[in-house]
Amino acid sequence: MSSTAGQVIKCKAAVAWEAGKPLVIEEVEVAPPQANEVRVKILFTSLCHTDVYFWEAKGQTPLFPRIFGHEAGGIVESVGEGVTDLKLGDHVLPVFTGECKECRHCKSEESNMCDLLRINTDRGVMLNDGKTRFSINGKPIYHFVGTSTFSEYTVIHVGCLAKINPAAPLDKVCVLSCGISTGLGATLNVAKPKKGQSVAVFGLGAVGLAAAEGARIAGASRIIGVDLNPARFEEAKKFGVTEFVNPKDHDKPVQEVLAEMTDGGVDRAVECTGSIQAMISAFECVHDGWGVAVLVGVPSKDDAFKTHPMNLLNERTLKGTFFGNYKPRTDIPGVVEKYMNKELELEKFITHSVPFSEINKAFDLMLHGKSIRCIITMGA
Amino acid sequence: MSSTAGQVIKCKAAVAWEAGKPLVIEEVEVAPPQANEVRVKILFTSLCHTDVYFWEAKGQTPLFPRIFGHEAGGIVESVGEGVTDLKLGDHVLPVFTGECKECRHCKSEESNMCDLLRINTDRGVMLNDGKTRFSINGKPIYHFVGTSTFSEYTVIHVGCLAKINPAAPLDKVCVLSCGISTGLGATLNVAKPKKGQSVAVFGLGAVGLAAAEGARIAGASRIIGVDLNPARFEEAKKFGVTEFVNPKDHDKPVQEVLAEMTDGGVDRAVECTGSIQAMISAFECVHDGWGVAVLVGVPSKDDAFKTHPMNLLNERTLKGTFFGNYKPRTDIPGVVEKYMNKELELEKFITHSVPFSEINKAFDLMLHGKSIRCIITMGA
Ligand SMILES: NC(=O)c1ccc[n+]([C@@H]2O[C@H](COP(=O)([O-])OP(=O)(O)OC[C@H]3O[C@@H](n4cnc5c(N)ncnc54)[C@H](O)[C@@H]3O)[C@@H](O)[C@H]2O)c1
Ligand SMILES: NC(=O)c1ccc[n+]([C@@H]2O[C@H](COP(=O)([O-])OP(=O)(O)OC[C@H]3O[C@@H](n4cnc5c(N)ncnc54)[C@H](O)[C@@H]3O)[C@@H](O)[C@H]2O)c1
Ligand SMILES: [Zn+2]
Ligand SMILES: [Zn+2]
Ligand SMILES: [Zn+2]
Ligand SMILES: [Zn+2]
Repeated sequence: MSSTAGQVIKCKAAVAWEAGKPLVIEEVEVAPPQANEVRVKILFTSLCHTDVYFWEAKGQTPLFPRIFGHEAGGIVESVGEGVTDLKLGDHVLPVFTGECKECRHCKSEESNMCDLLRINTDRGVMLNDGKTRFSINGKPIYHFVGTSTFSEYTVIHVGCLAKINPAAPLDKVCVLSCGISTGLGATLNVAKPKKGQSVAVFGLGAVGLAAAEGARIAGASRIIGVDLNPARFEEAKKFGVTEFVNPKDHDKPVQEVLAEMTDGGVDRAVECTGSIQAMISAFECVHDGWGVAVLVGVPSKDDAFKTHPMNLLNERTLKGTFFGNYKPRTDIPGVVEKYMNKELELEKFITHSVPFSEINKAFDLMLHGKSIRCIITMGA
Repeated sequence: MSSTAGQVIKCKAAVAWEAGKPLVIEEVEVAPPQANEVRVKILFTSLCHTDVYFWEAKGQTPLFPRIFGHEAGGIVESVGEGVTDLKLGDHVLPVFTGECKECRHCKSEESNMCDLLRINTDRGVMLNDGKTRFSINGKPIYHFVGTSTFSEYTVIHVGCLAKINPAAPLDKVCVLSCGISTGLGATLNVAKPKKGQSVAVFGLGAVGLAAAEGARIAGASRIIGVDLNPARFEEAKKFGVTEFVNPKDHDKPVQEVLAEMTDGGVDRAVECTGSIQAMISAFECVHDGWGVAVLVGVPSKDDAFKTHPMNLLNERTLKGTFFGNYKPRTDIPGVVEKYMNKELELEKFITHSVPFSEINKAFDLMLHGKSIRCIITMGA
């Protein structure tokens, strides 16, 4: 047992006091973990668009003060009542969506949308008692998607922690907590290209580049990147993307451009943009008979996916995925192993790093589209 | 070699001279089969909505005089040059779509949409020379979907003939040429319910009832029939349909009714109506995480399939199928075997039978919604 078990820990956290305002490094109090909770010492965290999106809080009910952060790597400091799967010193990756191992989804081979621990961006408290574990002078500070990794210590439900190989470098594998696994799994678990097939990736942000990395690992013969921003093409070459299409360069719909390039359509398409137009194009550019399109991007509330049903009858498949269909506890340790045995390359996703004290710089880099992933080193 | 091989055969055929007018039994001349063609003596044929649809020829470019018919069982009379897979006396089922075994689709494990022999409802001639094999006093009579089984003898591309077990009764297995295989395969090959799962079937015509039969064979725990016509419910009970929902009986969308009945959604849905509204409902009624919806019905030209993309992101799958994803030559013999070993029941689909001379009665029965399948006995 650690010497701090059962005690309140005082440590540094980057607190978002207001929407869109720079985070402030504060001393916070972190309460001990309750039933089914684990307190984790975070060593490295990285920044994802979802943090930025909820920090900007445009068109949402804002919830502040809050501690953001959901991609990270850490070590178990102590565990609450009933936690048997994890113990002091275990290496873990927090995940924004969980796996209770009890519900219909967790028991299904196909789903990872746990009834108990499915992502909830509105909730700022822990499930056990509906309260926060963070406070400053008694004032509660809200959680974010059950992870809040922009803190040296955080409390997380055991179902949202993947126990990983302790030999894995946390400053690299921390990026597997969210976006990279999402894109990778969209290709490997859902689109499932066969060796030698063609794959189109719509959107060459972190998620799309991870989808391309999945296509590379699967042995795709052609990886066609589609993005409105030509600045993404240079970077994407490192990810095995072999051809590029900018919809803006063509008068006809991009699905027709792709169909011409591929004698009738690509074998697989993975949409990683959030744009409804790209979702429709991704579906309509796959080959009849066997084509599979996978949607990853999070659409707007009022979007409608619209296509002629004949496109479906011609034996195309349309699927969506959430967190790449990975079950956090069951599957993520295996993704870490893929990195350890050099099947999966993570270094190329990590374009920047900053000490915790300069966390706002990571926000700037992402807001200006300069970084894929920026690693934030805690305690620095 | 049969004594008629290489000769023109004179025989009876039911000729459609004009759109919507009763067929007339005429003596026609059937030319010998050319390269890759087979002349087949038809023993039994049945009637499908597609025959009626193209006979009515509403909103299409009409092609008359024509010999309709595409569900049948027969025996090979003679074969043309280059045909090695079939010989005199083989028992065959004609299929409206073919399998050349050479193209990308035929070589793909997933597709049955042969580039060469995919259904073509506009073509009234044979591929080899662009001419008909039927004539009356030298006047050409057009073919229909390459089968034209309303004739005692017909000429068919070898790629559109499934060679089946000669012990199989042709007056039963002839219904496997189209609608029944389509519905059965939609469930068994595409929706693939697991034992114990729930299946909703939209539309309880022949195709929908065959989809239900597939669900019964797969061991579905609940088979929920959805139809606007309550008259279909009684018949459907024979097909293992255990519950019925008429969208007209509810104020809320039928997908919500089904979700309530099934604690969040059915595991699989198969749409067999041709109605775009039913297609959308069938997709939206499947459970998140693992639900699969399969579209079978042929939509109208201007229909748009429309749904919120969040329905996809929540890990639902949407697929369409054509002829139940069966490859005619490779797979249909196996479906006949399912009947032979009593896994598949066909008798309950056959509600009527008429002699060839009364073929117009079969049209009446279908037009009035009285029959599922009416068997027409040739030479009677
Ligand atoms: N489903 C999940 O589990 C999950 C998890 C993480 C992220 N996401 C979503 O994945 C998407 C991508 O995330 P990201 O972090 O890589 O975003 P990003 O903003 O870094 O990248 C998106 C890219 O898409 C491009 N783009 C936008 N519209 C386009 C269009 N119409 N055609 C072609 N390209 C277009 C942009 O130029 C950009 O390069 C987002 O919608 C995000 O919300 C989903
Ligand atoms: N994809 C293929 O390979 C293939 C092959 C054969 C037939 N089909 C198609 O399958 C469909 C069904 O064929 P069938 O012969 O069984 O037709 P059918 O007309 O006998 O049956 C259709 C049934 O659907 C019901 N229906 C119509 N709209 C509905 C709605 N909105 N909600 C619920 N029920 C509704 C009707 O009341 C009817 O009972 C047709 O569209 C046909 O063209 C497709
Ligand atoms: Zn669960
Ligand atoms: Zn994220
Ligand atoms: Zn073919
Ligand atoms: Zn038919």
